[in-house]
Amino acid sequence: MNNNQEIPVRTQVGIVGGGPAGLLLAQLLHRQGIEAVVFESRPRARVEARQRAGLLEQGTVDLLRQAGATDRLDHEGLIHDGVLLNYNGRRHRVALAELTGGACITIYAQTEVVKDLIAQRLEQELPLLFEAEVTAIDSLDTGAPLIHYTHQGAARTLACDFVAGCDGFHGVARQAAPAGFFKTYDKVYPYCWLGIIAEVPPSTDELIYAFHERGFALHSMRSPTRSRLYVQCAVTDTLEDWPDARIWEELHLRLGTPGWTLHEGPILEKTITPMRSFVTEPMQYERLFLAGDAAHIVPPTGGKGLNMAVADTKTLFEALRDWYQAGDAAGLRDYSAACVRRVWRVQEFSNYMTELLHLNPEKSAFDQHLQDSRFNLLTTSAAASQVVAENYVGLAAQRAAAAPQPQPISHIV
Amino acid sequence: MNNNQEIPVRTQVGIVGGGPAGLLLAQLLHRQGIEAVVFESRPRARVEARQRAGLLEQGTVDLLRQAGATDRLDHEGLIHDGVLLNYNGRRHRVALAELTGGACITIYAQTEVVKDLIAQRLEQELPLLFEAEVTAIDSLDTGAPLIHYTHQGAARTLACDFVAGCDGFHGVARQAAPAGFFKTYDKVYPYCWLGIIAEVPPSTDELIYAFHERGFALHSMRSPTRSRLYVQCAVTDTLEDWPDARIWEELHLRLGTPGWTLHEGPILEKTITPMRSFVTEPMQYERLFLAGDAAHIVPPTGGKGLNMAVADTKTLFEALRDWYQAGDAAGLRDYSAACVRRVWRVQEFSNYMTELLHLNPEKSAFDQHLQDSRFNLLTTSAAASQVVAENYVGLAAQRAAAAPQPQPISHIV
Repeated sequence: MNNNQEIPVRTQVGIVGGGPAGLLLAQLLHRQGIEAVVFESRPRARVEARQRAGLLEQGTVDLLRQAGATDRLDHEGLIHDGVLLNYNGRRHRVALAELTGGACITIYAQTEVVKDLIAQRLEQELPLLFEAEVTAIDSLDTGAPLIHYTHQGAARTLACDFVAGCDGFHGVARQAAPAGFFKTYDKVYPYCWLGIIAEVPPSTDELIYAFHERGFALHSMRSPTRSRLYVQCAVTDTLEDWPDARIWEELHLRLGTPGWTLHEGPILEKTITPMRSFVTEPMQYERLFLAGDAAHIVPPTGGKGLNMAVADTKTLFEALRDWYQAGDAAGLRDYSAACVRRVWRVQEFSNYMTELLHLNPEKSAFDQHLQDSRFNLLTTSAAASQVVAENYVGLAAQRAAAAPQPQPISHIV
Repeated sequence: MNNNQEIPVRTQVGIVGGGPAGLLLAQLLHRQGIEAVVFESRPRARVEARQRAGLLEQGTVDLLRQAGATDRLDHEGLIHDGVLLNYNGRRHRVALAELTGGACITIYAQTEVVKDLIAQRLEQELPLLFEAEVTAIDSLDTGAPLIHYTHQGAARTLACDFVAGCDGFHGVARQAAPAGFFKTYDKVYPYCWLGIIAEVPPSTDELIYAFHERGFALHSMRSPTRSRLYVQCAVTDTLEDWPDARIWEELHLRLGTPGWTLHEGPILEKTITPMRSFVTEPMQYERLFLAGDAAHIVPPTGGKGLNMAVADTKTLFEALRDWYQAGDAAGLRDYSAACVRRVWRVQEFSNYMTELLHLNPEKSAFDQHLQDSRFNLLTTSAAASQVVAENYVGLAAQRAAAAPQPQPISHIV
């Protein structure tokens, strides 16, 4: 926010966390005339520099459009109607659009989504505080929760009707509930991703996810001139273990298929990402609502993290809108149940994609053969590929989000 | 065989094991004018009393018909075009026929298949030796393998062109290859099935597979007057741990859905079955060809054991027919590769069904939630139910068996 502006002491929705969930929620509420204040603990430059995924489901793009935040995305986003899966050098294309009645994904980096939403909020001179550290959230069981924070050296308090906890896995919002209130479930995978951004046009028009006997690799892209590439590495590996030459060597090997060439370019950035799954249940405590990574983490295979956060945001936005505009509390009451079922679906799909495509040194030879057979099934059963396509484009997620007790497609008798 | 008959000392195909694979192979060969001798170590009465599964895929019925062994099956088999899956009291029907373009399963006990094949072979006065213990198989790398056996107190030897090893997991055929030639893969599940046959008409028209927080249960049937029921039990349990009242109590609880009643009746038989997966690769050594349980075991969930054995038999029969009738060795040469790919598909499906429907006390709470979500997926995605239906009726298996390098349905690019 413009630092000359007054910082409010009272708002309708206090939003902890200025990532995509918090920023998008603020903007959607604003368009319905509902006030919010967004607190982000880091400086703007740090937030805008964080590299995350870049695969948007159709439902994610739709919600960004509803927020009026797609001017640049509409120009720069790359629409993909298929995805390539390699398995030890054999290639299988999952025809996303064909298998789902036309659904596609859009490649546009989460970083860019965040930049767009920040720019939009600042332009509108709406409250967004960087370097504002939330120190405590209390009075959640009253009609007026309080958010205590420090900003520009001063300790302050904001009173609000509801608190949206959008401050990620390490955030403070989840800690505001009594100890033990939130049950948590998690799983740690015995490998990591080494990711690079390279200054070279993508060597492929569609993403390539590859299983190889040396481990997973992924060819994605940031733009027509920048490639985003990953290789599976050991949990004990550091960046020193991965000089550029070794990275390219493994990428050539793991992504290789006959007649296809991987182009190299200068590596602009190198990071190692751990792989874990994490779920919090429920996703609400009194007037605190968790959304995004504050409530759940998925391994990056399949690119679901941002999309899950946006799906939570949609559900929470609609619940708050119904409350403020019609006094209807049903959406708020059902928020957690509506989200959790979808969250487990996405966790299961992310787990499936992760286990399908990674080399797990702890796996028995028997289980490795089952993994091979699961890939073969995709190449012989259109229905099996359709299940992947539905989950990948996020149709199932949207359906599940819309209907916590969905009407069965096959019979429930 | 009629004991007055001469026992041959030379035949074309020596078949070790008088279960469904061996008996069916012998009959199919006979109808093509190819001679065989079948050795079964146990007495006829014991073979005919063994209780096994009773779910026949369409391809299995078709092959039995090709062997002329379906007179009784056609009258007494129960055709099912759907299967019911329960999950903690919720019921989902997988519409098999609807999802697979008309494929069904037939309920007819493996015991009855074996009785029919034995009766047929004895009627035709073709060589089938009970209580004939094969002691060694050698000279497999020559044109004339030898089967050494004892029968009616005498040690004898049969010379043949090929040996079919159809003598089950504990059989001797697999031991005839040099040590270490066959690679084996296995998995043991941390639970067993307690199975009963009860003198009571089935309480359901279609099979019910149930996951329950107390463990798996299955309602199957033997005939219009006999029910076949199973409950998951601990690996350390004995029959003494399961008095009749406890069995019924658990069946009521685990199979229960609103508005449905389980009928009780006298329990005629009680057995405990361990759950394991086992695969041998390759399935051929020189002139020895393994088929059925001699090469692979699946956990019983999904009823694939007999059907896998019959699918092997079909492949082996066709290979031998091509060899004898046209001098074409391609089928024999490709036998193992053609079978193994299908075997792993069936293993993967059996593993999927087993893990979907059993309570695994070793599973983390996170993985139990993934299991719940996999069931929910079946109720919301027709494609997901179709994958189950295709594998359950065995279409995928037939397709895989027919084409070891199948044409993709989705694109291989």
